[in-house]
This record gives sequence, structure tokens and C-alpha cells, in this order.
Amino acid sequence: MTSPGATLRTLRERKPLVHNITNYVVMNETANALLALGALPVMAHAREEVEEMVGLAGAVALNIGTLSPPWVDAMLAAGRAANERRIPVVLDPVGAGATRYRTETAKRILDEVDVTVLRGNAGEVATLVGVDAEVRGVESIAVGGDPAALAREAARSLGVIASVTGPVDHVSDGDAVIAVANGHPLLATVTGTGCMATAITAAFAAVSRSSLAGAAEALQAFGIAGEDAAREANGPGSFHVALYDALAALDPDTLDGRVR
Amino acid sequence: MTSPGATLRTLRERKPLVHNITNYVVMNETANALLALGALPVMAHAREEVEEMVGLAGAVALNIGTLSPPWVDAMLAAGRAANERRIPVVLDPVGAGATRYRTETAKRILDEVDVTVLRGNAGEVATLVGVDAEVRGVESIAVGGDPAALAREAARSLGVIASVTGPVDHVSDGDAVIAVANGHPLLATVTGTGCMATAITAAFAAVSRSSLAGAAEALQAFGIAGEDAAREANGPGSFHVALYDALAALDPDTLDGRVR
Amino acid sequence: MTSPGATLRTLRERKPLVHNITNYVVMNETANALLALGALPVMAHAREEVEEMVGLAGAVALNIGTLSPPWVDAMLAAGRAANERRIPVVLDPVGAGATRYRTETAKRILDEVDVTVLRGNAGEVATLVGVDAEVRGVESIAVGGDPAALAREAARSLGVIASVTGPVDHVSDGDAVIAVANGHPLLATVTGTGCMATAITAAFAAVSRSSLAGAAEALQAFGIAGEDAAREANGPGSFHVALYDALAALDPDTLDGRVR
Repeated sequence: MTSPGATLRTLRERKPLVHNITNYVVMNETANALLALGALPVMAHAREEVEEMVGLAGAVALNIGTLSPPWVDAMLAAGRAANERRIPVVLDPVGAGATRYRTETAKRILDEVDVTVLRGNAGEVATLVGVDAEVRGVESIAVGGDPAALAREAARSLGVIASVTGPVDHVSDGDAVIAVANGHPLLATVTGTGCMATAITAAFAAVSRSSLAGAAEALQAFGIAGEDAAREANGPGSFHVALYDALAALDPDTLDGRVR
Repeated sequence: MTSPGATLRTLRERKPLVHNITNYVVMNETANALLALGALPVMAHAREEVEEMVGLAGAVALNIGTLSPPWVDAMLAAGRAANERRIPVVLDPVGAGATRYRTETAKRILDEVDVTVLRGNAGEVATLVGVDAEVRGVESIAVGGDPAALAREAARSLGVIASVTGPVDHVSDGDAVIAVANGHPLLATVTGTGCMATAITAAFAAVSRSSLAGAAEALQAFGIAGEDAAREANGPGSFHVALYDALAALDPDTLDGRVR
Repeated sequence: MTSPGATLRTLRERKPLVHNITNYVVMNETANALLALGALPVMAHAREEVEEMVGLAGAVALNIGTLSPPWVDAMLAAGRAANERRIPVVLDPVGAGATRYRTETAKRILDEVDVTVLRGNAGEVATLVGVDAEVRGVESIAVGGDPAALAREAARSLGVIASVTGPVDHVSDGDAVIAVANGHPLLATVTGTGCMATAITAAFAAVSRSSLAGAAEALQAFGIAGEDAAREANGPGSFHVALYDALAALDPDTLDGRVR
């Protein structure tokens, strides 16, 4: 059973620091989503400081959206430091499947770091488990098969909680699969909402008792915020703004009853 | 004759991937403008992947707004790969004229890459054709002469479609000059609207039959979105938000009749 | 005596170029805040151009929010060039106290550059003067002692105008301390508002006669804009948007009467 309300309440009490090594496109938006939710964001990528910053963090989010060799080195170092401290690591394999460099980097992080949650779209996750997929840039265009089965297979073969987002999200530990139907089509019209989902997954992972439940609760809470934001929106710009307002206004008391 | 409506309709059907190597300041905003319009954005700058990413793209946009040597290398590699694939390359020479490094980098890209469209402000373009201009930071302060003549001269001497934006935009292939009067003064109060115009020019170039017409149609569509956004705005912040809503709401059926 | 109204009027007439070497998270937001206020922003970090860009600027803002060695080199070069040209340098020691790399870099800049204004939160500034503080990521969690005394002590020991922001801000030249009570709690819910305060401090420094008064006036003006924005806001997202509208709408004629 998931309880996004209870976990969000804990998150707002503890205000975990989420250390993000993420892409240039979404840094501001990721930080603002975490702040609005009630967590503390920090962005730090220098080899000179990543391990020390991980030492202050409750979770680490690694995102390869605009990768280059020094950033990959920093992600590996931060991931290993997080493993030593036994804090959760969430990986977002942005664009895996689009270029070999992205696919190989995602695989290398999965190899060298004990990743707690892999949060990606179906094309990215399918690429990493060897299922046929088309990824155009950072967009999942076509994936064969059933998304619930993909999540279960990814969890089993990669040894992670697989969090595969799409019109309906599927989160699996290799046995159970939790489907999350919350959300709104406008989320796909704003860049970086997947990256926000990843960062929020890290924030929930920092405080949840169960990695599987925490990953699902993060998507439930984020999806419900998307539903609230859509009611205020005239298009992608006003939706984006309303999304931060909605994250801040999420009410732990009503969240559980809104899970779909 | 231009028909921004027809080209926008094609763009929304084909959803071309626009590969941007652009500056840190506007990455999110550029991606969101492309998504709102109906194109797919991707940002990738690592030498390890730029050629492969160009292989998925319908057009490449190069923008020197926060340049440094590795990024310039990536722009040159991406530009050459685009030339080999015969897909359009749009260059935004942000701040050419402000520092030698920017001026020389813009000239080097024009030299080593077959640039389809050069999209800049009058000061930047004047600098590149050797006309006296004052560029303060990234702002065009003073340029001698007539902007239509500047666009024609730039197109001729640089071998590009010159797209010179300002209160009235001028787009030229060296013979014809298309003046675009659409737009709104609020566009100048938000950073990165020039960069958005460049990215949208690349998206239109990916699907238009004529490079000259496509470059003008991009500015017509973007200018009309600016006019629509201004009606919702109380200042630069709310204008910026409304601009994405307006790009998404652009109606191909009414665009041609609104061209000024 | 401070007069934010008079200084803002001068700023809008002269439109000083503010050269920012700042973090990836807030580049767009910093640029938009400066534009909305009436200044011209530029971001440039390449060693190949920083000195030349400083040559066009009215003030330089250095911000270590996402630092790495090449960026630190650029900050030192830009700071020295600004000192040679006798234009003001504002330093934002983001996250000093969180990691040794941030603390040491801030100290190195203070050592090698004649910094005009140090603009930070209490935890960051306390770290730099050797007072006990807890900085979690980029957030000041706990600082011993009185903030007015901290500002005075920082100004004396570091030889700067110390601008310590918090629920009430304190600006000191080592003798006088100006308290600024303007502002709104929503400012703390949006990432980068501290960085905006730094950039606006640089813009005011570019045109003010007194470094002490200018630093206080910048916080007064920014705080008043925050108060105006809060009236339009439903949460952090709509507050963020309204903040740019409010900066653009600041009325020099009424500002002085609103100082708290």
C-alpha cells in the first residue's frame, strides 16, 4: 500500500537535501519543484566537492540530459559516495537509446553505482534492458510490448526499482508492479517534467521506508499536482507556472484519496 | 509568398527534432518554445555524441551566447555533420561585436560550416559584414544604415539567408528582402526571445521548401505569438508565460491573414 | 540616507551592463531580473573573453553557485579586470560553509580581488568570518549571534560592504549598519532570489555614489518588488512570474516612502 500523504508529511518535516547532478536545461525548474514540494535542492558537479556535498544529502539524483565526460565522472563519484553512505540514488537516463554515448553512460552508471530507482520513459528503459525502442532526441517514440512487463523486466535485470513513466506510469521491484494513472497530458508539453519527476522521486526516497512505495508515491503526488495545475492552465506556459503552485499546495490529508 | 500557416501545419504533423547547441541562459526557454510550437527539442553538446544526434535531427541551431572552446568544437562538428546530411543549419551570433572571441567564433562557423540562415540583431550582423555597429553585451545599441540593405548585404557577402531582427525584421537571400512587422515591444523585455526566434527558425527550416520563405514565416509566426501574449501580460514575467501559451495556440488557419 | 527611488531612476537612464559569471541554475532568472529592473545583463565565462567583456560593463557579479575550476579562473580574471577599471565587484558566496571547495573559493576571490560588496545569507557570511554556522546545500540553517553584528564584523574583517540577507537584511560598511525589512516570505520559496538580489546589487552599484547606500537600496527595491509580487501570487510559481512584472513596474517616485 502506498500513502503519498504520509510520505509527503514526513518530507516536509525533515526537508531532506537532494543533491542533483542534472542537465543544464532543467536545473532551475528541478530546484524550484523540490523547493515547492518542501525539500531542499542543491546542484553541485565539481569533482572537488561532489563527495562532500553527498555527505550532507538525503538522496542523490543523477540525470544525463546534457552529459559530457567531466559530468559523468562527477555522477560516478557522487553515486559511489551515496552508496557508501547508504542513501538512495535515482538515475534518469535521459535520451538513452538516442545516442550510443547516452546509452553507454547510463549502463556504466548502472554498472558502477548501486542505483536505487531508475526513472525514465519507456523508450529509455527499454533500451537499457535490450528491448526494441525508438528514442528521438529525448522523446520516447515507439516501444514494443506492455509497459507493466517492461517495468518488471527492468527491475529484475538491472536490479533496481524501475519507474517507467508515460500516460500511465509503472513502478516495479521485479515482482509487484504499481500502476499510477495520476497526471495530465499537459505534463508532456513542458520540458523537464520527467526530470522533475526524477528529482521528486529522490526526495521521496530520502524519507520513505520502502523504495518501491516511495517511488510510486512520488509519481502519485507529482501527477496529482499536474491535475491541479491543469485546472489553472491556458496552455504549456501557464501550466508550468501553476505546477509549482500546485506542488506547494499539495495537501497530505487529501492525497491518498486522490490516487488513481 | 510566405504562408506561415501552411508551414506550421506541416511542422506540427512532422514534429521535426531540432538539435540545439545553445547557451546556458536560454536552454530551458528554447526547449519550451519549440515544444509549445509543436517541434521536438534536444540539447546535446558533447563531442562524443553531437554527430550522432545530428543524424536524428531535422535541423541544427547553433548559438554562441555562452561560448567556450569545447562548445565551439561541438558546434563546428555538428554543423559539418548537418552539412553532410543536407539538413539546415541556423546560426545565432549572440554578442558578435561585443568581444573578439564572439566575432571570430561566429566568423569561423560561417567559414567552416555551410550556414543556411544567420539570425541575429542588427549590431551582430553588421559586425559580421564589416559595417560599423555598437554591441553592448548582447544588445544592439547603434548601427549605421538601413536594415533592409544590411540584410541584403549580409546574405550576399556571407552566402546565407540573413534574418535580421529588430522592431521590424528583414529577411533576405541577397536579392529579395521580406520585411516582417509582426511582434511586440515586450519581446525585448525578456531574455532569450532572440534565441527562441533562432530555434523556431530552425524548426521552420526543417520543414519548409524555401529557406527564404521559411525564415520569414518563422518570424511571422513568432511575432504573432508575441502579439497574442502581449494581450495577456502585465509586464515581462506574465508576458513570458503567455508567450508559450500563445505559441501552442497559434492557429494555422488564421496565421496568414495576420502577417504584417 | 538611502534613496532607492533616485538610484533606480539613474539606473534606468544609464542602463548599465552587468557582467555576470554565475551559476547554471539561475542564469535565465538573473538576466530577466536585470532586464525587468532596467539594466542590461550579459553572461560570459570564457577566459578568452571575460576581460574584454568586463571592459564594456558597469559592474561585475561573481556567483559560485555551480563552480568548477575553469569558472573560478574566469571569476578571478574578471574580478581583477574590474579592479583595474575601478568598477564594482559583487560576490555571492553560494554554499560557502557547505563544502570546503566553496568556502576556499570564496576566500580566494576575497583574497585576490578587491570585492566591493559581499552579498550572502547569514550562514555563508558567518563561515567566511569564522563564526559557527550550519549551511545545508545552499541554505543557511543556523547561525549563532546577531545578524547586524555579523554584517559589521564581516565588513571589517573582509574589507567589503557586507550585505547579509534574511528575514531582515543587514548592510554594513564596518561602522554603520542599515537594516532592510522589505521583502516577503515567498522570496524564500523560489530558487535564485538570493542570486537575483546579488545581480541587482551589482546593477545599483554600477550607478550609485555610495557603495553602502547602493547595496541597501538594491535590497529595498528588490524587497518592495517582492511585496508587490506577493499580492498577485497563489504560490511560488505565480509569485516568481509576478516578481518580474513587479520589478519592471517599480515606481521611482514611490519607492522611498515604502522603505521599511
